[in-house]
Amino acid sequence: MAPQDRQQIKVGILGATGTVGQRFIQLLSVHPYFKINALGASSRSAGQQYSKVTRWKLNTPIPKEIGQMVVQECQPEAEGFKDCAVVFSGLDADVAGNIEQAFRSAELVVYSNAKNYRRDPLCPLIVPLVNPSHLSIIPHQRSQLNLSKGYIVTNANCSTTGLVVPLAALEKAFGPLETVLVTTLQAISGAGYPGVSSLDILDNVVPHIGGEEEKIEWETNKILGGLKSSDTEFDLHASSENNTKPINVSAHCTRVPVIDGHTGCVSVKFTRSPPPSIAEVEQAFREFKCEAQDLGVPSAPEQAIVVHDLPDRPQPRLDRDLHNGACVSVGRIRECPVFDVKFVCLIDNVRLGAATSSIMNAEIAVEKGLI
Amino acid sequence: MAPQDRQQIKVGILGATGTVGQRFIQLLSVHPYFKINALGASSRSAGQQYSKVTRWKLNTPIPKEIGQMVVQECQPEAEGFKDCAVVFSGLDADVAGNIEQAFRSAELVVYSNAKNYRRDPLCPLIVPLVNPSHLSIIPHQRSQLNLSKGYIVTNANCSTTGLVVPLAALEKAFGPLETVLVTTLQAISGAGYPGVSSLDILDNVVPHIGGEEEKIEWETNKILGGLKSSDTEFDLHASSENNTKPINVSAHCTRVPVIDGHTGCVSVKFTRSPPPSIAEVEQAFREFKCEAQDLGVPSAPEQAIVVHDLPDRPQPRLDRDLHNGACVSVGRIRECPVFDVKFVCLIDNVRLGAATSSIMNAEIAVEKGLI
Amino acid sequence: MAPQDRQQIKVGILGATGTVGQRFIQLLSVHPYFKINALGASSRSAGQQYSKVTRWKLNTPIPKEIGQMVVQECQPEAEGFKDCAVVFSGLDADVAGNIEQAFRSAELVVYSNAKNYRRDPLCPLIVPLVNPSHLSIIPHQRSQLNLSKGYIVTNANCSTTGLVVPLAALEKAFGPLETVLVTTLQAISGAGYPGVSSLDILDNVVPHIGGEEEKIEWETNKILGGLKSSDTEFDLHASSENNTKPINVSAHCTRVPVIDGHTGCVSVKFTRSPPPSIAEVEQAFREFKCEAQDLGVPSAPEQAIVVHDLPDRPQPRLDRDLHNGACVSVGRIRECPVFDVKFVCLIDNVRLGAATSSIMNAEIAVEKGLI
Amino acid sequence: MAPQDRQQIKVGILGATGTVGQRFIQLLSVHPYFKINALGASSRSAGQQYSKVTRWKLNTPIPKEIGQMVVQECQPEAEGFKDCAVVFSGLDADVAGNIEQAFRSAELVVYSNAKNYRRDPLCPLIVPLVNPSHLSIIPHQRSQLNLSKGYIVTNANCSTTGLVVPLAALEKAFGPLETVLVTTLQAISGAGYPGVSSLDILDNVVPHIGGEEEKIEWETNKILGGLKSSDTEFDLHASSENNTKPINVSAHCTRVPVIDGHTGCVSVKFTRSPPPSIAEVEQAFREFKCEAQDLGVPSAPEQAIVVHDLPDRPQPRLDRDLHNGACVSVGRIRECPVFDVKFVCLIDNVRLGAATSSIMNAEIAVEKGLI
Repeated sequence: MAPQDRQQIKVGILGATGTVGQRFIQLLSVHPYFKINALGASSRSAGQQYSKVTRWKLNTPIPKEIGQMVVQECQPEAEGFKDCAVVFSGLDADVAGNIEQAFRSAELVVYSNAKNYRRDPLCPLIVPLVNPSHLSIIPHQRSQLNLSKGYIVTNANCSTTGLVVPLAALEKAFGPLETVLVTTLQAISGAGYPGVSSLDILDNVVPHIGGEEEKIEWETNKILGGLKSSDTEFDLHASSENNTKPINVSAHCTRVPVIDGHTGCVSVKFTRSPPPSIAEVEQAFREFKCEAQDLGVPSAPEQAIVVHDLPDRPQPRLDRDLHNGACVSVGRIRECPVFDVKFVCLIDNVRLGAATSSIMNAEIAVEKGLI
Repeated sequence: MAPQDRQQIKVGILGATGTVGQRFIQLLSVHPYFKINALGASSRSAGQQYSKVTRWKLNTPIPKEIGQMVVQECQPEAEGFKDCAVVFSGLDADVAGNIEQAFRSAELVVYSNAKNYRRDPLCPLIVPLVNPSHLSIIPHQRSQLNLSKGYIVTNANCSTTGLVVPLAALEKAFGPLETVLVTTLQAISGAGYPGVSSLDILDNVVPHIGGEEEKIEWETNKILGGLKSSDTEFDLHASSENNTKPINVSAHCTRVPVIDGHTGCVSVKFTRSPPPSIAEVEQAFREFKCEAQDLGVPSAPEQAIVVHDLPDRPQPRLDRDLHNGACVSVGRIRECPVFDVKFVCLIDNVRLGAATSSIMNAEIAVEKGLI
Repeated sequence: MAPQDRQQIKVGILGATGTVGQRFIQLLSVHPYFKINALGASSRSAGQQYSKVTRWKLNTPIPKEIGQMVVQECQPEAEGFKDCAVVFSGLDADVAGNIEQAFRSAELVVYSNAKNYRRDPLCPLIVPLVNPSHLSIIPHQRSQLNLSKGYIVTNANCSTTGLVVPLAALEKAFGPLETVLVTTLQAISGAGYPGVSSLDILDNVVPHIGGEEEKIEWETNKILGGLKSSDTEFDLHASSENNTKPINVSAHCTRVPVIDGHTGCVSVKFTRSPPPSIAEVEQAFREFKCEAQDLGVPSAPEQAIVVHDLPDRPQPRLDRDLHNGACVSVGRIRECPVFDVKFVCLIDNVRLGAATSSIMNAEIAVEKGLI
Repeated sequence: MAPQDRQQIKVGILGATGTVGQRFIQLLSVHPYFKINALGASSRSAGQQYSKVTRWKLNTPIPKEIGQMVVQECQPEAEGFKDCAVVFSGLDADVAGNIEQAFRSAELVVYSNAKNYRRDPLCPLIVPLVNPSHLSIIPHQRSQLNLSKGYIVTNANCSTTGLVVPLAALEKAFGPLETVLVTTLQAISGAGYPGVSSLDILDNVVPHIGGEEEKIEWETNKILGGLKSSDTEFDLHASSENNTKPINVSAHCTRVPVIDGHTGCVSVKFTRSPPPSIAEVEQAFREFKCEAQDLGVPSAPEQAIVVHDLPDRPQPRLDRDLHNGACVSVGRIRECPVFDVKFVCLIDNVRLGAATSSIMNAEIAVEKGLI
C-alpha cells in the first residue's frame, strides 16, 4: 500500500519538549500517516500550550498546530494518549523505565529511544536498516506479560546505530566479523539540551561520554545477532547453529564541537580468511539493501549506505543531511595494518541515530501488522 | 652545568615567519643560553624587518628586539647564519630538503621539524623524551658526508610524538609492544597558517590528514627502535639481539575544531603475556623518567607524562599548557576488550609536538658535546 | 503568469566554482523557469567537468546533471553562454569588472553579485525586497552604451542587504530616516572559500572586514534613494522633490565564528518628530510588503520581514533558514537611549545576501519585460 | 612600600567554587601579600576539601595547598573568615546580597564582583583603572551603618569595565562625553559554568544578555562621575560644579562563541566642539595613566590601555592575555560618520572584567589605609 493511502494512525510523543521529542515532532508533523494526537511531558509543563513550555532549538519553526496543543502528563489514561496506536518515547532514562512500562501495561505500543529496555530479554533492540526481523519476538513479549496489544520496542544508541549499519553490510556480504575497534567523535546534540556546557567544548575535545562505550560494545552483538529459532530469545551473536561467536568490540568515545553528526573511525577483522578485498568491501557497502527499503516504508532512505569517494569525506557538516538524515555515510575504506579493513562512518545522531529510527521501526511494524 | 651558566650559543631560525618559526622565536627569546642571531625566510621577506613581514599569530607579542631584526634568505652564508652554532628549521617540506642540506654542507648543525630527513638512514628522528640515544649516529652521519661539524637531526611528526612518549614508558616497563591502534583528533594549528579554512572545520570534523597516518605508522618504529651496535644503523624496532619485531601500528587521523593540542585514543597489546595490570600501566606512566630530565636540560618538563585521574581528562583546552606544553598527558587508562589496554593521550602539537622538541633535542646535544 | 507556466529561460553562471557560484547552482537547479545552460570559471577549470574542478562545500550534493557539465571560460562567445538570456555573476571583484562588461557589450544581460558596478551611475543597485523600481534606469543604461539588450544590474553587499530591508520598511511607514548606526557580526561564508583561516576565527572575533563599512555606509543611500524623474539618475537619498537628505550611516563590521548568517545591531533616528512608538515600528515590520511579493516571483519569500517575539532572537543558526533564506529576521525592537529605536536584524548572507537577490532581481526583470 | 615587603594580609573568598571564585584563587595564590585563609561556598560543599567539590575549569592546575583546604559556609563567624582582613566575593547575585551584608555587619571588608550593591548610594562602584577616588565615600558608608571597619566595595560589570577605561581616558584628555553607543560581543565565560549551552552558541550568536545593556547604560555614569564635595554622595556624571550631565549611553549586547574576552564596538560624541582629532584621541589612549599605576599596586598593568596599530586588532584570542589580562586593548580608532570617533575595545572579562578588578581595588585600599 502506498504510504499516502494508509489510514491515519494516531500517535503520541513522550518527552515532547526535549531534544529528541522536538525531532519527533518535526518529523511526524509531515508524516504521511502517523498523526500526532498527544504530547506528553513532565507535570511542570502539563496543562500548558506546547509552544509556551518548550525551548525549541530546531532550525524549522514549531508546526503551528502542534504549538497550540496542550501538553499532557505522561500517563496512558491522559486525554489524547488513550486513543493512540503508538507512542514514541524520547524520555530521559531516569523516568523512561516506569513510564514506558505503564504505557505498555495499558496496552499501548511503545517505540522508545531510551536505553532502559535495550538489554531486556523480551524487548527488541532494532536499528531499522539492520534487524527489523527482531520484531518476531513481540508475540512472546506480549504473552509473557499477559498483554494483547502492548509492547515495547527500543532503538539503539545513536553511535551504535552509525556503526552497526556498515557492520551489517559487511556481515551480510562476507559472514561474521571477529573484531571491531571504533573511536567515535560525537556531536553535542547527543547530550540533549542544555547538555554540554559551551565552556567544556569550545576549542576542546572531551574524551569521555558516560556509559557510551559500554553501550556500543554490548548493543552491537544484540543487534547483529539473531533470534533463536523459537523466536523467544536473542542469540547475542553467539549461535552454534549459525556458527557465530560474539564480536569483540572495543570503543573509544569522545565529544567534539560539532552540532549534529557522529563520526566513527572503525577497524574490523573478519572471521573469514582471506578477508574480502578493499574493492569488495566498498561494493558491499554500495550494494547494501535492507528490509526497510524493500518494504518501502516512508522514512527509509533511498540508499542505506552512501559511499563517499573524496578522500576527506564523510564530514558531519556536509554529509549529515543526505537522504534526510536517514542513511549512514561511509568513506576512506582502506587496509588496516592491524586488522583487515578500516573506514570512516557518519550518522545524523538526532535523526537516524534517534527519532528517525523509532519512527521507521514503527513504520515497519505497521507493514508487519504489529500496529 | 646549570643552564644559566652555559655560555651563550648563537642560533638561527629557518622559516621564521611561519607557524613553527613563530613558536621557535617565542621559546628561544627567553632561552637561558640559545640566543637568536639570524632569522631566515623566503626571498619575499628577506631584507625586511621581521615585524613587518610576519603575520604573528601567537598570544604573546613579538619580542621587541626580534621584531626589529632584518630577515635573511635561508642561505648558510647569509649574514647572521654563518656565526650560528645551530639552526632550527620550521621550513615547509617543499623547501626544507634542499635548504637544510645546504646548511649541513656548510658545516652547520640543523635541528629540523620538517619531515624530509625523518626516514633518512643517516639522520636521527628524535623525540627528546624518548630516544636521544639516537644522537650516537651523528659521527657516522658526519663521516659518511665528509663533514666535521655539520649534521641534521629531525624531530617527529606532532601526533607521533604524542603517541610514542606513553608507548616508550610502556616498553621501558613491560618490554616490547606488539600492536598499537590509535585514532587522533588533531588541532588546526598542526596545519600551519592559513592552513585549514574555517569553512572546513567550524561545526565539523575532517576525517583525513594527508600523509599523517603513514607518518605515525612508520615513525613509531624508528623512534622506539634502537641503533645497531655499530651506531651506524637504526633497527626500526626489529632486532634479533633485543628480540624485537616491528610494532604493528594502525592510525586513523582526523582534524577537529581545536586550536592547539592533539588528542589520541590508543589501544595497545603487549608481547608479554600476561600483560601488565591497569594499575601497573598507570604506575609505569607516572614513574616514567627520561634522559632529558636526568640531564636537566632547560626545556625538559618536570614530569614527562602527567597522568589524569578525572574520567574526562586530558582535554586539549585545559591540559595542553601543563609544564609549558613540554609533557604528554595521559588519562582514562582501562582494559581494552580487544587488546590489553586503552587510554587517551594529549600533546601540545606546537610545543612538544614541534618547536620544543627541536630545542630540547639541541639542548641534549649540547650536553653530549655535539653542539 | 504562474511561474511554472513561464517558458524556460537559459541562464549562465560566471564564477560557477566559487562560493556564490555554488549557491547559484543549488538554487537555479530547482528553479521553475531559469535553466542552467553554461558554467563559467577561470581558464584553469575551463574544459573540465564541473564536478572535477569544484570543491563543493554545500550540504546538498552537486545536482547530477550540473556535475557533468563542462566548464567554459568566462567569455560571451563561449559555447553555452551565447544562447543565454541572462548570466548570473558570482565573480570575484578582481576579475568581475572586465568580464561583466564584456558580457554586457555582447548584448547579454548580467545580474551580478560583485561590487564593481554598484556605484556606477548607470547601473541599478537592487535589493529585490526594497528597490526593484530602480530597473527603470535600464533603458537609459542601454542607450548610453548603444546597446539594445545588454545591461548590468547589481545587488548589494550581503550586510547592506540585511540592513536596508528593515530600514525600507521604516521609511515606507514613517518617512525618511536621519541616522543609522549598525554593528554587524558577520559569518565566515561571506569571505568565500578558503576565505577566513580557522586560526583567525576559532574562539575569536575579527573586528574588521576590509571595505565592508564603507559599502554599508554608501550603498544604503543608493538603495533607499529614488530615481530622479527622468529615470536617468539616482538621487542617493537626496532629493529636494521628496525633501530627503542622505541618511547618516555609521557601520562597525566584525567577523564571528558563524558559518552562515549576518547579524546586525541597529539604532535608528527618524526625521519625523515625535518618532513612531515601538509598537508602531513593530507593526511596520510585520506589515511590510514589497513589489517582489506583489509580483509573485518564485524566489520572493512569503514574508519579507519575520518579526521574532522571543527576547533572544533572531539567531543565525536557528533563523537563517526561514523562508528558504529569502527573508530578513528582526527582533528585540526597543527604545534606544541615544536614538529613537534599536533592534537586531539577521540575513542569510549567502542566499538573500547574495545569490537569491541576483535571482530574484532577474525574476522581477522577467515580469517587467526586461529579460 | 614594595609589594613584596608588605605584611601578609589574610583574605577569604566567597563563592570559591564558581567561575569567578576560581579566578580569585588562581590570582591570589601567587599574590605578593594577600594570603588565602578561607574559602566559602554553599552548604552543599562546606566541610569538604576544595579539590573534591570544585569542577575546576582553568588551564592551570588547582594550587596544591588550596586544593587541600576545607571549604567553609559563607558565614563571617566561620573558621578562617573571622581572621580575614578582606573577603573577595564571586557570589551569584541571588545570594550575594545577604551574605555580603552579613560579612560587612561583622566588620569585615568586602570587595565584591556581584551586582547587588553597585547601585547602592553608599557603595563605591570602582573600576580600578578609572575611579579609585570613590573610595573616599567609605568613611561615610561606615558611619551611616555604625561600623568601624566593615564596608562593601563593588567592581563593575565586565563589559562596562572594558568600555569605561577608554572613555575615562577620553574624558581625562578632552572633557565630558555627550553620547556613547556600544555594541558588545561577549565571551561565554561571562555567563559562568555551566552557563551557556553549547547548543546555543556553536555556529551562532545570541543577541541578548539579560540585564547587561541596562548595567552598561547605568554603571557608566556612576563610574565616570565624581563624588560630591562632601564625599557622601555620587554625582552620577551630573554636576553643576563640573558642568557635566549624564552621558547618553546606549548598548547592544550579544554573546558570541569566544571563550574569554569581551569586544566592544564604540562610537562616541564629545561635548567639546570641535572634537579632538583622531590622532589626538589615539595619543590620549596611549598616554593614559591611572592612579593604580601611580600607586604601583601589584595587579596594575604596565599599560592601562594598549593601542593596536594593525587594522584587524584587538582580537580576543590574541590580545586578551596582554599584561596578564589587566589592561584594555583599543584599536581601529577612526572617524564616525554619525558621532565624532569610533573604535574597538577588548577586555579580558574574567580578569580585569572580574577578579583582577576586585583584587586591584583592594590593593589600592591597602595603599590608602582602608585595609
